[in-house]
Amino acid sequence: MTQIAYGMVGGGPGAFIGDVHRKAIRMDGLAVLKAGSFSRDSEKSKAHGRELGIEDDRLYSDYREMARKESERADGIKFVVVVTPNSTHFEICKAFLEKGIHVVCDKPLTWTVEESEELERLSREKDLLFGVTYTYTGYPCVKEMRKLVSDGLLGKIRFVNAEYPQEWLANPVDESSPLAPWRTDPAVSGASNCLGDIGSHIENLVATITGLKIERVCARLDSLVDGRTLDDNASVMVEYAGGAKGLYWSSQIAFGYDNALRIRIFGVKGGLEWCQEDPDHFIFTPNGAPKQIFSRGRDAFSAEAQRYSRIPSGHPEGVYEAFANIYKPFVEALAKKLDGKKLEAGDLDFPSVGAGLSGVRFINRCVESNKNGSTWVDM
Amino acid sequence: MTQIAYGMVGGGPGAFIGDVHRKAIRMDGLAVLKAGSFSRDSEKSKAHGRELGIEDDRLYSDYREMARKESERADGIKFVVVVTPNSTHFEICKAFLEKGIHVVCDKPLTWTVEESEELERLSREKDLLFGVTYTYTGYPCVKEMRKLVSDGLLGKIRFVNAEYPQEWLANPVDESSPLAPWRTDPAVSGASNCLGDIGSHIENLVATITGLKIERVCARLDSLVDGRTLDDNASVMVEYAGGAKGLYWSSQIAFGYDNALRIRIFGVKGGLEWCQEDPDHFIFTPNGAPKQIFSRGRDAFSAEAQRYSRIPSGHPEGVYEAFANIYKPFVEALAKKLDGKKLEAGDLDFPSVGAGLSGVRFINRCVESNKNGSTWVDM
Amino acid sequence: MTQIAYGMVGGGPGAFIGDVHRKAIRMDGLAVLKAGSFSRDSEKSKAHGRELGIEDDRLYSDYREMARKESERADGIKFVVVVTPNSTHFEICKAFLEKGIHVVCDKPLTWTVEESEELERLSREKDLLFGVTYTYTGYPCVKEMRKLVSDGLLGKIRFVNAEYPQEWLANPVDESSPLAPWRTDPAVSGASNCLGDIGSHIENLVATITGLKIERVCARLDSLVDGRTLDDNASVMVEYAGGAKGLYWSSQIAFGYDNALRIRIFGVKGGLEWCQEDPDHFIFTPNGAPKQIFSRGRDAFSAEAQRYSRIPSGHPEGVYEAFANIYKPFVEALAKKLDGKKLEAGDLDFPSVGAGLSGVRFINRCVESNKNGSTWVDM
Amino acid sequence: MTQIAYGMVGGGPGAFIGDVHRKAIRMDGLAVLKAGSFSRDSEKSKAHGRELGIEDDRLYSDYREMARKESERADGIKFVVVVTPNSTHFEICKAFLEKGIHVVCDKPLTWTVEESEELERLSREKDLLFGVTYTYTGYPCVKEMRKLVSDGLLGKIRFVNAEYPQEWLANPVDESSPLAPWRTDPAVSGASNCLGDIGSHIENLVATITGLKIERVCARLDSLVDGRTLDDNASVMVEYAGGAKGLYWSSQIAFGYDNALRIRIFGVKGGLEWCQEDPDHFIFTPNGAPKQIFSRGRDAFSAEAQRYSRIPSGHPEGVYEAFANIYKPFVEALAKKLDGKKLEAGDLDFPSVGAGLSGVRFINRCVESNKNGSTWVDM
Repeated sequence: MTQIAYGMVGGGPGAFIGDVHRKAIRMDGLAVLKAGSFSRDSEKSKAHGRELGIEDDRLYSDYREMARKESERADGIKFVVVVTPNSTHFEICKAFLEKGIHVVCDKPLTWTVEESEELERLSREKDLLFGVTYTYTGYPCVKEMRKLVSDGLLGKIRFVNAEYPQEWLANPVDESSPLAPWRTDPAVSGASNCLGDIGSHIENLVATITGLKIERVCARLDSLVDGRTLDDNASVMVEYAGGAKGLYWSSQIAFGYDNALRIRIFGVKGGLEWCQEDPDHFIFTPNGAPKQIFSRGRDAFSAEAQRYSRIPSGHPEGVYEAFANIYKPFVEALAKKLDGKKLEAGDLDFPSVGAGLSGVRFINRCVESNKNGSTWVDM
Repeated sequence: MTQIAYGMVGGGPGAFIGDVHRKAIRMDGLAVLKAGSFSRDSEKSKAHGRELGIEDDRLYSDYREMARKESERADGIKFVVVVTPNSTHFEICKAFLEKGIHVVCDKPLTWTVEESEELERLSREKDLLFGVTYTYTGYPCVKEMRKLVSDGLLGKIRFVNAEYPQEWLANPVDESSPLAPWRTDPAVSGASNCLGDIGSHIENLVATITGLKIERVCARLDSLVDGRTLDDNASVMVEYAGGAKGLYWSSQIAFGYDNALRIRIFGVKGGLEWCQEDPDHFIFTPNGAPKQIFSRGRDAFSAEAQRYSRIPSGHPEGVYEAFANIYKPFVEALAKKLDGKKLEAGDLDFPSVGAGLSGVRFINRCVESNKNGSTWVDM
Repeated sequence: MTQIAYGMVGGGPGAFIGDVHRKAIRMDGLAVLKAGSFSRDSEKSKAHGRELGIEDDRLYSDYREMARKESERADGIKFVVVVTPNSTHFEICKAFLEKGIHVVCDKPLTWTVEESEELERLSREKDLLFGVTYTYTGYPCVKEMRKLVSDGLLGKIRFVNAEYPQEWLANPVDESSPLAPWRTDPAVSGASNCLGDIGSHIENLVATITGLKIERVCARLDSLVDGRTLDDNASVMVEYAGGAKGLYWSSQIAFGYDNALRIRIFGVKGGLEWCQEDPDHFIFTPNGAPKQIFSRGRDAFSAEAQRYSRIPSGHPEGVYEAFANIYKPFVEALAKKLDGKKLEAGDLDFPSVGAGLSGVRFINRCVESNKNGSTWVDM
Repeated sequence: MTQIAYGMVGGGPGAFIGDVHRKAIRMDGLAVLKAGSFSRDSEKSKAHGRELGIEDDRLYSDYREMARKESERADGIKFVVVVTPNSTHFEICKAFLEKGIHVVCDKPLTWTVEESEELERLSREKDLLFGVTYTYTGYPCVKEMRKLVSDGLLGKIRFVNAEYPQEWLANPVDESSPLAPWRTDPAVSGASNCLGDIGSHIENLVATITGLKIERVCARLDSLVDGRTLDDNASVMVEYAGGAKGLYWSSQIAFGYDNALRIRIFGVKGGLEWCQEDPDHFIFTPNGAPKQIFSRGRDAFSAEAQRYSRIPSGHPEGVYEAFANIYKPFVEALAKKLDGKKLEAGDLDFPSVGAGLSGVRFINRCVESNKNGSTWVDM
């Protein structure tokens, strides 16, 4: 099988998440890194690219040049991975879409709702694939819970309680640290820190598993660490179309918690629970029966979930595999498309630009609610 | 040691909670049941009382008669336990207070804030002890967490997340069941079911451990089971005096949950977590150190918590012991008082009429917020 | 209902376990303490008895006198509770049996197999009830697991892994402590400390739940704390009649463990797991299906287990209730017997003198195996 | 950086574990697959190799030919990965060692102790690196526990309890399945199935973390599934040099368990616990202090453990990363060696041929003990 060529914008030396993307893509060996603009500093970008084994003439200091030149090469990259700071996502994604190059972009997708809408429109008009790396939807257990809900095993959903507590910003960030502006400067991180960074994962995960559409939110964004400008804790009451209700909590001051994204869904016929820190298991409680702990690889999963399971039960899979499970269907769908075949709904089993848009809308409406004194705002 | 005589109103045949109170009191043998009005049905009351070994002439069909006659006897009861439906608490408690008899009453204390205020005033004026059985504050781990917070080990508290999910009302209640009116008829259960029944435990537990005072609430009360009038699910955003924030969730439609009252407290110096279903342990995470799991009886507890621990570590204590731990300090304080000794603050180590009043205020303000479309209401 | 009169030998001032027995009996109010010999010191015994509300003329310094006098009274005790050091159980139990008084005795029942055999024979010949307080068999979950096994839900049992780790003797015991001889002096505690104290609970629990009979053992008893004479850690390989195998481990040097008696049973059709520190839940894994967590009071239990459940699901029951669940069927059976009714097998739902004998035989055979260099010994 | 060329023997179409090795190596991109003998069927081997992107002239049907030809090429492979059935390990490893090619081999290393000794001798004489893929030692938590023990935080070790329960062979294996001979035919799988397959992981993990040397074993190997020839359950009592004792249990009939390798170590100064199914956490209980739960990436790990942590706390790492953590130090040490630099002890941070030899000796001695009626055998 031929590996599809891809490029990366961002992910330079010291950038953590770019390396995770590359490792995740490498895991299945379906795509290979052939071009990059890893840093605005031309020398740094080149040095980093060489270490990654990329030819010199495909190392760019300017992403626009990269988009143009790669789109003109016969062996040019087929998709680009955008792992730059959020504020730059829009322009970069747009540049590649305009040159006909498929895109995978980190979340949150853009700064404004309008920008995400434009990317959504562009990718549709140009008929280009556009993935957004909401990592946690890649876990086989998430896929299986989605199936279980869509098969009606929970019945009509009544309530969702979802949370994402962390402790990593529980102390004041050193102002001289390069990370400081990300947390204190709205010009860099947008109107929300905690909600934008981790709260949007809650929004996406709930939507992915349940298919529920949010109609209204009432949000409170707290800055609980002295001297912090942006929120580090967020509570959101949610109303979904159809009458279900929800409650979301995300926090970065929660001592004792690492990355404990947890979702609990309650329907007429049962309850469902999953936590990202134990990704290989979920709990299903049918109405009137004992709790059941499902184990990936051990208990029967549907084919559409099981295809993302790589190793037998009890051998933990983690975040790299979840990441790879975003890229695997993306690259497979792209390969099919490049082969001139028609894609079916099942092929697009990755978070799309539409999911990215929903996330940006959710963040913006919550920020608005909070500004209004935590009152209700329609989506 | 002489056992103090007590009486009971409510707790007749088939009444579940009355028996729990009696067993809890019997555990330490400090008080003995000598009079009762177990049912409005005179014959039933008598039959039940005889089974409990009470003399015939101290079995009453009317609580007012009981209050009067017992107050006139030299060997009359010294305190009464009120375990009737909520709507009747006020009149009954008042009747006994007026006759100079000390009171222990189930929660929620009364229907209205004004009623609780009157009971509070009456008990103060008459210099009578008044306990309210917020059971879960009786656990030694709760006592130890309170100590830990008051000693400053969490530093200033920033955020509280507390929840109380159950599944027991997740299905429609049979309308012909004697329990049905409790759940469907506001004339019986008050303006709230879920919040009043279990949400008020959250309010009390948080107040007990942290000492935080609620200033404002924004509450949403949901009726998620078809055909139900009253709430079976409640979400409350809370603001405390001093700037801390909170989020409470109580639910009776949460499949997979039995009685999972859980509290998480986050301060400047660490986090604290405890769940009622594993009452003998709590988790303390100091800033910058690993999670620590404290085990009752094994790890060093302060004297004021340890005195409520009855049995070595690893031998589970449960709800009966927690209940007994409400009665133990109440009866001991009463004995001291009857002996003519002066009570000190530490003697009153049980939820008081003031705690009962706070709970009723919390419920009423939340109901008001919900009626206003889940907007903010001052306490 | 008339309460049955009982007496107690042992359980004097400072004695921990006697108080637990009394509280457990008091919980259901079916029996009442009317006589006692709490200490060999006559004054101490009397003082203690008076605090417990016993008439002076029924406070004895000598258990033989107590057995004789009580057996002669019209209102004499109907059963005695023996909570003295192990080495004295035999003579005391025998004295009461000979006077026609029913007996409940702490475990391990006696020093030698022959003594237990004699007590077993005596109680049979005299037609007297004889209970042994293997506390942990009183939990409703244990009753339900026993039912589940006897109903064949596990199929033929293949293997049992059971353990009982504690940390409480992980440090050298102060030689000047009154507890020291219990741990260091074989003349006081018998040929084994760890195995006799906690290992015998494993033996009893496995036998109770599975009905398996041990045929052979290979045991290693370790003294792992410097300067200790007796064992504080024991490993036993077990063979049962019918081909099943087992592995038992008990330890008192296991840092991090309080009282973590855990049993895991594997059959042809599924697996079963329970831990004493979370007594209200057990896990059943059917062949080819997800793990199921059963919760007492929530999931359907058989009538014969459910009758020992006192309070709704999620309200923890603990060791006091387990203890009370030994006494409840004992006293009910005794009441029936005293009424002249015939007892059926189901009435004798408490650990009997036969269970006590099995335990003593297990301890003795393991000690023998260990002495022989940890070789196999037939039961 | 130049990637080191490696080859693979075994891991052909349908072979599960070969793919895991390749993915693990690919994760860090330090080595690249350049040659292979994937199957004894020449056509299959070639087809598979082409899919993996290997040049045709480096696809071999015979491993001896591969060893010879690759050793003669200037660009020949520097190390070979052997992932064939156990019975063939010895001859294959030997062939490559003799041609001066470094080796990584799956466990158990060989059939007999003598074979492992010969490989150990050969690799020493030829000065070649030899790794054995005891996967679970690659976890950062295992590295940290090893450090903690060697730093003396447990004090002298007294007892080890380690277990490895699985359920995957709890049912009879279909005799017509290609896997059947692996489980039923001693000629294919050796003298032990369960102990050889998973029990040897226990032996290695304990040795890695504690450094303890086994002196004697008493083992019972059970075949608990009807019709099975080889063991599917094994209990081993262990004595270590220096007086510590141990108890190992491995099982493949344990319904409810997936791959639950768990180790508990008890010393004079504390206890340590870790389970492979939750690899990012371990529990340390210091003498006289609460349990502490350490979380990889969150709590301070020593540099020598932290270097194997790839992603922040709460983002689960799994078996692929553990596998990669065997290869990473192996390939880095090899690169250093190929550079002509001297290796230090810290460079050899992977399970060596010596660890492989210990494992084979352990298996063989246990089989012998079992044959002798589960009596003690010296190592």
